[in-house]
Order: sequence, then structure tokens, then C-alpha cells
Amino acid sequence: MAERRPLPPGSTIGILGGGQLGRMLAIAAARLGLRVHVYDPGAAPPAAEVCHAHTRAAFDDAAALGGFAAAVDVVTFEFENVPAATAAALAGKAPVHPPERALAVSQDRATEKGFMAELGIATAPWQAVDSLEDLRAAIARIGTPAVLKTRRLGYDGKGQARISAPEEAAGAWAAIGESPAVLEGFVAFDAEISVIAARGADGAIAAYDPGMNLHDGGILRRTTVPAPVPRGVAQEAVLTTGRILNALDYVGVIGVEFFVAGRQLLVNEFAPRVHNSGHWTIEACVIDQFAQHIRAVAGWPLGDGSRHSDAVMENLIGDEADRWEALAGDGCGLHLYGKAETRPGRKMGHLTRISPKS
Amino acid sequence: MAERRPLPPGSTIGILGGGQLGRMLAIAAARLGLRVHVYDPGAAPPAAEVCHAHTRAAFDDAAALGGFAAAVDVVTFEFENVPAATAAALAGKAPVHPPERALAVSQDRATEKGFMAELGIATAPWQAVDSLEDLRAAIARIGTPAVLKTRRLGYDGKGQARISAPEEAAGAWAAIGESPAVLEGFVAFDAEISVIAARGADGAIAAYDPGMNLHDGGILRRTTVPAPVPRGVAQEAVLTTGRILNALDYVGVIGVEFFVAGRQLLVNEFAPRVHNSGHWTIEACVIDQFAQHIRAVAGWPLGDGSRHSDAVMENLIGDEADRWEALAGDGCGLHLYGKAETRPGRKMGHLTRISPKS
Repeated sequence: MAERRPLPPGSTIGILGGGQLGRMLAIAAARLGLRVHVYDPGAAPPAAEVCHAHTRAAFDDAAALGGFAAAVDVVTFEFENVPAATAAALAGKAPVHPPERALAVSQDRATEKGFMAELGIATAPWQAVDSLEDLRAAIARIGTPAVLKTRRLGYDGKGQARISAPEEAAGAWAAIGESPAVLEGFVAFDAEISVIAARGADGAIAAYDPGMNLHDGGILRRTTVPAPVPRGVAQEAVLTTGRILNALDYVGVIGVEFFVAGRQLLVNEFAPRVHNSGHWTIEACVIDQFAQHIRAVAGWPLGDGSRHSDAVMENLIGDEADRWEALAGDGCGLHLYGKAETRPGRKMGHLTRISPKS
Repeated sequence: MAERRPLPPGSTIGILGGGQLGRMLAIAAARLGLRVHVYDPGAAPPAAEVCHAHTRAAFDDAAALGGFAAAVDVVTFEFENVPAATAAALAGKAPVHPPERALAVSQDRATEKGFMAELGIATAPWQAVDSLEDLRAAIARIGTPAVLKTRRLGYDGKGQARISAPEEAAGAWAAIGESPAVLEGFVAFDAEISVIAARGADGAIAAYDPGMNLHDGGILRRTTVPAPVPRGVAQEAVLTTGRILNALDYVGVIGVEFFVAGRQLLVNEFAPRVHNSGHWTIEACVIDQFAQHIRAVAGWPLGDGSRHSDAVMENLIGDEADRWEALAGDGCGLHLYGKAETRPGRKMGHLTRISPKS
């Protein structure tokens, strides 16, 4: 766990989680001559088809985790909700990047907002809520409209309830299962943008240009790069991301989501991993977010995040991927994740269209 | 083997040969949601780490080939010297692309030159040589300098002998092991260029811009795109490639090498597979040669071969790949093939540097 030399080609990267992010990480690692060992409870997760080894075991199986840690040179993950028990079982057995603190902060919305407040980074007005009484007090302070979000395990719009008026408090509290939550004041934003950036083992930081994200039902639909925001706003988003990376002594790729309201920039949340809104980097950059993450966790030099083209990335959700034949004929970069079962709301693939840099 | 529908995502592409070309094909297939089954006699060939299944068996093991054919939806290959016995064992059991005739033509330099002559495509002056007497007669007709090349199994400069004067005939004949050969007149070329192109199952053709190749000791060192040749020459090279593809009723990617002498274009040889001189397409195109080949053999629509950037690709041969750390810090697209053993002359990786389209 001490300062280490870059892992030489032929070393093994362990990845917790074998979904599409793990799959694209595995491909990036293979291109660099590194092996990948995926840990995933599924029988045939998407990443298993493009990696050297797959341990099929539960995330709380300490024995399997120990064997996994012993078989790899570094551990990373494709999802932020790595259980504390998993992290504990790996601790001391293999280096883990990004650091556990990044997981802890990102897993709890109240901790995350508190972390941003400590750094002096603006967020939407918020208050922790542990009861219906708390919620009523928070509404009185923050006002409506507002959004009640569970502190933990919320993603893709799940675990959230909008509150338009104070009398909706009880309904919202029930809707999120009376879980510990935060109430966030509604931000009348002009745009949502995200910064994908990496921090290397040597502390070097490389950021991609911010993209503008369009969500639908809480699921990312489209990312457009560059984001149509003033240059100063884009620059501040990158600098803010750098402060977050440094404060966490981070190694790897992070995705930070922002609300833009006029010239004001508010952090919405971050994900301590490669991010759906960074998929455009595959087509528009020589060194994409997946290669950048592998480089970082392997202790290799980062690329500089250069972009040679503008890009629009669209997710293929549910049965949208059934149009693969038409999409394949469309000249775009088409990615299908190899998921056997199509389900509504499930990310099945994406496509990226590039155009000359504006 | 009749006209077939595109193979849907989840189908399996069988690849004969698991070297770096198979590895990059496997990665391209994975991105399209297709599975790959590699057939290779090696214990741990580079492609085995990024594919769904690996059959380890000899290329003349008819039983293993039969099982392989039954397990896949289409068979392709990463090398042109597929033994006739291998092709015969697969025949009728699975569709094979590119077609057997392309293999047969490219495996024999005399057949290849005769094929070009039938199409009216210019090559260097040549004559088949089966004995030292034949060689002396060929030298008398073609003159020196000339190059004696074995008809079969020559690649990367092996199986060749230069002849500067008639009295070197016996030495050259011995040097190539007295194998059936062709004598080729020496071409005082200005440049060697290659065209990488694909033909789809529907007969559509998509070509990449020609690149200029620099060889050293018979091994490709560098490809520069675009090739610095007159526009008309580049266009003729692409059109000639199209004629070769159509004449072979080809499906898949081909690499055709040309000599350029002034405005004259001579075909040197072709390879019925993805080609080292097309690796630059990974960084400089949205749909690279590997994706294009997978699309073709799977019956999918081709991409159009568009290039968004200029590119220079350099091979990393032998211990040159030991500089991976410095190269990784250099902002280029770095590819390492995961070969355990470094040997002189062995292709261990490559790198591509792109620049704005000129």
C-alpha cells in the first residue's frame, strides 16, 4: 500500500462489478497489455466475456474476496455502492483505488453535502431528514419546490420524491420508505453538466471538457460536448472537480455532476468511478475515460484529456437497442453491452456521434 | 451458407488465430455486443484474454475444428496462411469469411500475380521459378536487381533473397531453401502505400484513405496517413482495391500493398485480413478496421471509412515495448498485445499519434 512503481504490462487489475462499465474498463486494460479479473455475483456479467478471470461470488463473501485480492495487483470498482463489508474484507490485502473515503462520502448524500460545504463548494440548499418532523422543519426552512432523496443507495432517479407544497410531506416521506434522507431545495437550473476527470498516483490531474447532460425519468439520455456554457463556468467546474479529487487524495476517474444557473455552479453529486456521461471520450479522445482510469489505478502516467472532436452520446435504454441494425448503418460509434435480457429502463448500449471540434 | 440476415447481438464470431489481430478483432466484436470464440493452438494467446471461449487445438485437428464450427455462427481468421486442411474441415459446417478463394490466391505469390494479371492490374515484372534453371532464365528475362520470393508462407521479409547480379542466382536459390518461388523485378518505387478496405455481405465497399508504409528488414515500422501521393494515385489505389474485392466476392477487410513509382501504381501483395498498416484507424476513425471486419463477417452494415484525423502509427518491435512507461506518458494511443515473451523482431505493440486532418 506504500508508494509503488507503475504496474508493468501483464499485471492484473481486479474490478468489483462486471456490468458495462467493468466491460469497457476491461477492454481499456487489455489494450494496455494489462489483465483483468472481474468479481461479480452474476453468472455471465457483461465484463466476463472480455477478461482474463471472473470470480463469481457475493460481495459479502469474505473468503472469495480474500482470494480475489490475492490474485490481483490492484482493486478498483465500477459502482459506488460497494458495501462497507466488501471494502473491509479487501483492506490490507490489495491496494484499492479510488480510496475508501471517496466511497464513504459518495454513498451518503448528507456526508457528501457536508464534504462539499467543508471545501466551500456550493450545493443546493439542503437539510438532513430522519423523520417526518425533520422533513416538515426542513420544508419550512428550505421551502418548496424541493426534492426528498434517500441518503443512501439512490441512483437513476430511484429513492427520490418531489415536493411541490408543504402538505405533500407525509406522502413523500412514505414514498421513499421513511429512510434517512436529505431534503434539497429545487434549483431552477439552466443546464446540468458533468466533469469527468482523473487523478494519478502522482497527484497529477487530467480533466475532460464538461458535457451537458439531459436526463429523463432520472436516467441519463444524452451528453453533448462541449457543454454550451460560458467558458468561465466550464473552467470553474473543472477546477472544482480538481479540488474534490485533491481533498479525497483520489486515484482514478471521477464523475462530478453540476447544476448551472446563470453563472452559478452547484455540485449535485459525484460518482467515484467512470461515468456514463464520459462515454463520449471513447470516440472523441485518444485516451478515453476507461484508459485514463486504468492508467491511474495502475500507477501509469495519465493522458491529458485532449478532445479532437465535438461529441453527442445517446444512451440506448430498454428496447431502444433493438434498433441495432439501423443504428449500425448510421456511421456512429455503436456500443452494445452484451446483456442477455432487455428490461425497461435498463442501459443496453449507447452511441456516439462526433463532429469537427467547434 | 445462403444469403443470411445480419447476426444479432449475442451471436458468436469464431476467429482462427489468437494473436494481436485476433485480440483487436475480439475487442471490436465485444463493443458491438457480439461474442468471440478463438481457435488457437497456444496456451495463452493474446486474444484468449478478451474473448468468451478459446479452443486450444492444432489447425489440423478436424474434430476440434468441427466442434468449433458448431459452436460459432461465422468463422473468420486473423492470418492468411490458414492451411487448406483447416479450411476443408470447416467447409460446409459454418460460413467462412473472407472466402476460401481469397486465401488460396494470397497464399501463393504466383497465383496472386496471375490473378492480378487477369484483372489487368499492374504488378512488378515476375516469373515463376521451380528450379535454378528457371531462376537463371527469369533473371535473363527480367534482369537485375530482382527479388526471389518463395511462392508460399513468406511474411515479414522471410523467404526472400535479393539478387543484384546474375551470378548470385545459385546463392539466392539456396537461401530460400530451393522452394517454388517467383522472381520479381526490382521496382524503384517512391513509396509503398496500402489500402485497407472492407466489403460487406451486401457487396458494399468502404475504404480507408491510403497510408504510406515504411518497412525495415521486411517488417512494417511506420504507417503515415494520408500517404503523401497525388490525389489521383490514392484514388486509383482505392479503386483497384475495390476491383480485387469484387473479383473475389469478398466479405471482410483486406489490406492491399502497392508500390508507387511516379504516377504508376503496382500491386505488391494483399492480405485477406485486417492489416498492421490499418491499426491507425483505431484512433483516427469512429469505425476502425477491426469493427469494420466484424461488421462485414456478421452481415452488418459497414461504416463509411471516414477519418477525422491524420495519423502516424509506429510498431513496437522486440524490446522497444519495454519503454512502455515513457510511451504511456506521451499522449499517444498506446497498444500492448499482452505477449509474455519478448523476442527480437516480434511485434509487441504499437502506438498511434493523431493530428488535425490536413
